[in-house]
This record gives sequence, structure tokens and C-alpha cells, in this order.
Amino acid sequence: MSENNYLLIDAAFKRPVTRTPVWVMRQAGRYLSEYREVREKAGSFLKLCMNPELAAEVSIQPLDIIGVDAVIMFSDILTPLIGIGTELDFVPGPVISNPVRTGSDINNLKPFNPEESTAYVGAILKLIRKQIEGRAPVIGFAGAPFTLACYLVEGGNTKLFSKTIQLFFDQPELAHQLMDKLSVLTIDYLNYQIENGAQMVQLFDTWAGILSPEDFKQYILPYITRIFDSLDKKNEVPRVYYVNGSSHLLPQMATCGADVIGLDWRTDIGRVKQQIGDKVALQGNIDPNILFCSKEIIQQRTKQILDKFGSDSGHIFNLGHGIDKSVNPEHLKAMVETVKTYSVR
Amino acid sequence: MSENNYLLIDAAFKRPVTRTPVWVMRQAGRYLSEYREVREKAGSFLKLCMNPELAAEVSIQPLDIIGVDAVIMFSDILTPLIGIGTELDFVPGPVISNPVRTGSDINNLKPFNPEESTAYVGAILKLIRKQIEGRAPVIGFAGAPFTLACYLVEGGNTKLFSKTIQLFFDQPELAHQLMDKLSVLTIDYLNYQIENGAQMVQLFDTWAGILSPEDFKQYILPYITRIFDSLDKKNEVPRVYYVNGSSHLLPQMATCGADVIGLDWRTDIGRVKQQIGDKVALQGNIDPNILFCSKEIIQQRTKQILDKFGSDSGHIFNLGHGIDKSVNPEHLKAMVETVKTYSVR
Repeated sequence: MSENNYLLIDAAFKRPVTRTPVWVMRQAGRYLSEYREVREKAGSFLKLCMNPELAAEVSIQPLDIIGVDAVIMFSDILTPLIGIGTELDFVPGPVISNPVRTGSDINNLKPFNPEESTAYVGAILKLIRKQIEGRAPVIGFAGAPFTLACYLVEGGNTKLFSKTIQLFFDQPELAHQLMDKLSVLTIDYLNYQIENGAQMVQLFDTWAGILSPEDFKQYILPYITRIFDSLDKKNEVPRVYYVNGSSHLLPQMATCGADVIGLDWRTDIGRVKQQIGDKVALQGNIDPNILFCSKEIIQQRTKQILDKFGSDSGHIFNLGHGIDKSVNPEHLKAMVETVKTYSVR
Repeated sequence: MSENNYLLIDAAFKRPVTRTPVWVMRQAGRYLSEYREVREKAGSFLKLCMNPELAAEVSIQPLDIIGVDAVIMFSDILTPLIGIGTELDFVPGPVISNPVRTGSDINNLKPFNPEESTAYVGAILKLIRKQIEGRAPVIGFAGAPFTLACYLVEGGNTKLFSKTIQLFFDQPELAHQLMDKLSVLTIDYLNYQIENGAQMVQLFDTWAGILSPEDFKQYILPYITRIFDSLDKKNEVPRVYYVNGSSHLLPQMATCGADVIGLDWRTDIGRVKQQIGDKVALQGNIDPNILFCSKEIIQQRTKQILDKFGSDSGHIFNLGHGIDKSVNPEHLKAMVETVKTYSVR
């Protein structure tokens, strides 16, 4: 393994590092013209997800073009749901034409077999590992059960979550059945990724922040804990848990068994470190909108985050949310470059 | 004044109450068929806002139909912006065809004269006061400067806020100029409402939650403090400050001079009371999506919130965010009825 490799994994396990590692959520994405070219070639977003050669190519682009310290496999959190019978399309937002809302809908979900349903993900990971030859670690990921449940119940994106809340609070037994099935899927899916070369895994629980601490404790935390506890190679493959809008959930999130907690940009990373930094490493957390500002401001704000965390190990620099498609790649480079130079111990 | 009147105002000032008062954000709205009929008659949303007779009629509907303890004037936070030169339309979301992005855009904003630009708001408040004859207090409101700035800079609704962040962080002097102008507008607008009969005023800072505590302190808090400090009849007219997604900002919000802090539904009101309840009264905070659940669950969750706050004064029951258009009014009635019976001291 190269120096980069050790940086990300070492920071996740809070082992000494020579500087802070950096990568960016949604780094393989539309803000890069090189990505848009490959996406065009693939024909559609879903076809790109399922084409190992092209998906590996876009996954590796940010390593070469931006200089990040990790490669995250190109995929979408919803694609494994196809394997349990979900009819999924992107238009461009996700649409599920057979949403899951009743006991029989939940019963009818097929068992998930990653080798059958997501063989392309195994192939992508193997291709990336082979092609980058240890220049950086490879990150796998999955959607967390509650976030997957939101999409399944609502039938796509929503701002309201009325059907999800109705299912969870009116029929908690059904909700727990659904969470159980999705947890089993997630465990199998992440272990399949680890088996095929993922060196760190991140669980994206984008929507968990809509719940109060009490409901989070009842409906989400036990499943996250079980998933992280069931993963292979625990001492080698760090486990990251990310929730957007999570400032009210941080103390509970720190107890889920994750090695790293991914922060959104609204929290003060210095204060969060005081709060839960003894239990977990932290990933984040610059405001993604800072990338629309001048390079001077980007540099200044990047240094502020690094200063707030301090020089201990246990910090992986990242945005607090995914990068937007209209960001100038030169601005992202300025951020990455600042992390790499300013954080040298 | 009737008993209801005293309940809301007394709870806001933490004076003893016989039970917890309740009202609901966006209570004069599309979930009521009676509202939809009047809205149809008015011709458009903006025409309804500017028609004092019809706006007063829909404002009063929830008092008669739902039995809430307060009437909030029907309006929109963006309408006063028309008075400073903003070209505003609702299609149905707000669209501003002349956004404010440069120093000269900010300089060109016209001085705000509430008597000229928002005479209809004065008329609405007077009509409501006259028609309800003291059966409940009347709430006025305004958008807070940062939230208004987001709409002005972005030109309407957005999920991204890239142009706002760019203006605020790249050109802080311009941002402060804009915040200053919008603060003067807000002070004049709220004092005009108080003069015309508003008995409590709420400042809606819907988007303030996108900022970190540090940026909130620099860019928002001084203006909110100044606004609340500049309002008339401070000992009679309680001042409420509401931010959605505010759990990371609560300690600072509690210092802004508001009598009441409006909570979203994600925070535990019992814990927030411990945190800032010595400084302010609290308004909230049931999840608006609970109204999609069965009446039993609505009752159970309503009681939970009441129990968490306890029997001290200083609690105004409300949703943690506006009510959705597809809620069954009978479900809202079940919530309001539960508050009114279960909270009796």
C-alpha cells in the first residue's frame, strides 16, 4: 500500500498520520466534464452504474484529476433494491413504480443475493483495485435501512415523508419487519463489497435526521448497530456512518459501533470532537456551498475546519454533503490542495 | 379579552396558565376545503394575500373550524418585498424575476413604507380584530432578514443556496448591507402590524439552519437581536423566533431577545427546556407528519410532547413545521382537542 492508503485507514482508526486525508462525497460526478463524457457513452445513469468498466473509470477520475486520497466506487444507494424486486428508474430523480406500503408488500420482497443482483458492483471494485494498484484505498457504500425504507415507501424522492411516518408510527411491527429485511440486505451487500475489495465502507442514512432522538433510538439505532457488528474484517475495514441534518442525533450515533461518524456542515467539528471524539473518528465537514466562493475563501474555510479539529489523528476531511454538479473542479482542487499542505504534521 | 387570549400571551410570557395554548403554523391553508373555496374566489394566492376581506376570512377559519387558540393573519413572508421593488410571482412556488446579487442591486432597493406597500396587511389585522371580538389573540409575522435574503439572492426557492453563500462569504460587506436593509424593513413592517392590532409577532427564519453556529453568530444573530429590540409594546406583544433545522443553533437563538423560541420537530422539547427554558418560552414541536397517522397515535404523541414539557407555563403547543395540504382536518382537530383537555392544570 502507498502512503495515501495508510492515511485514510489510519485516520479512521485514529492511528498516527503525517497529514489529514481528504475525499469528497459524490466526487465521481457531474461537476467533472470527464465524468459527463463517460456518462454520455453509457447511455443512462443506471446503465453507467451497471457497466463495470465505465463505472470504474469514473470512480478513478477524481484520484487523477483532483488528487483526493480515496476512490469511492461509482454507484447509487438504490440499485441493490432491484435485487429484492423493486422497479427502479431515474428520470433523473429515482422513481419506484411498485412502492412498499403494506404487510404483503413487505412479505413479497425477494431475498437479496449480492452475487446475483449486484455482480456488477463486485466487478467494479475488483477493477478499481486492479487499476489503481494501491495508490489509494477504495471505499464501498450502502444506503442505510431507514433511508432505503423512505424511498421504498414514498416511491421516490419526497420532502414530506408522510407515508413513511404513517407506516412507522401506525404500524411499528410492519416497520420493524421492513427494517429487518433491509438490514439483512445491507449486511450481505457490504460484506460482498468487502469481499471484493472495499477497504472502508460508508453507510449513508441521508433521511435519518427527520426523526427525533427518541424515534431514532427505537427505529434506527438497533439496526445500524447490528449492521456494523455483522461486517467482516472489522479491524481492517473502517465503518463510517453518515446522516445529513444530524446535530440532534450525534451522541446516539457515536454509540452505533461505527469507527467514523460523517458530519454535515452545520455542526462545529471542534465542539463535536469534544462531544463524541473520544468514541469515534470524524469525517467532514466543510459547507459544500463554500466551493462556489473564491479560492481565497475556500482556503481560509478549509484551514478553519482543520484548525478546529486540531492535529490529533481521527479526522478525514470531506464536504458536509455531496458536491454539486455546478462546482468548478479548480475550486475543489484548491480545497484538496489546502488540506494536503496545511495539515502536514 | 377572553380566556384564550390570556392563554397564548400568558404562556409566551411564562405567566401562570390554566392549560397549554395551541395553534398551528400555516393553519389558514389548503388542508381546509373552506380555505380552498375562498382561494378560488380570490383568483390567485397573491390576490388572496392582498384582499383584506377574504384574507381575514381564511385567517379566522381555523378558530371556528379547528378550535385553535390564536388567529395568525393570512399572508406570505415575501409580499413586503414587493414594496422595495421586488418583482414577485407565485407559480405556485415563489419566483423573483429581478434577483438581488450585486452592490448596485442592493443600492437600488427602494425604502420600505408599510402604509404604502402593505396597507392590505394593516386592513387584514384590523378586520380580524373586529370580527373575532377578542375570542383569540391575533398573530402577525414577518420573514427574517436572512431568509428573505436567500429568496432575493436565489430568485426563489432552492435546495442549494450557492449564490447566497457566495455573496455572504465572498462579499461580507455587501451581505451586511443587504441584511441591514432587510432588518430595517422587518422592524418597520412588524411595528406596523403591532400598530394595527397584532398581539404576538413571529419571525420566520426558515433557512437560517443552513448556517453553522459561527456563521449564524456573525451574519444573523445581531440582526435578529436588533429587530426584537426595536419592536413596540415589548411588554404586551410577545416576540417569537422560529428556525427550521435549528438544533445546532438553540443556545444562540435563546439570546436574541425573543420571548419564545419556535422549535422544529426533531428536538426533544424536554431537553431543550433544560437547555434554554430558563431564558425563553418554547413553541412546538410535534412532527407535522404525525397528522397522517391514526387519531390514537396523534393523541399519544401529543400527550408525549405535553408530558415532556411538563406543567410549568412557558409552552405554546404547535407543529414543528407548517401543516401539509393533504392533512385531514379531523386529525388536526384530534390533536388540538387533546392539547386542550390533557393539559388542564
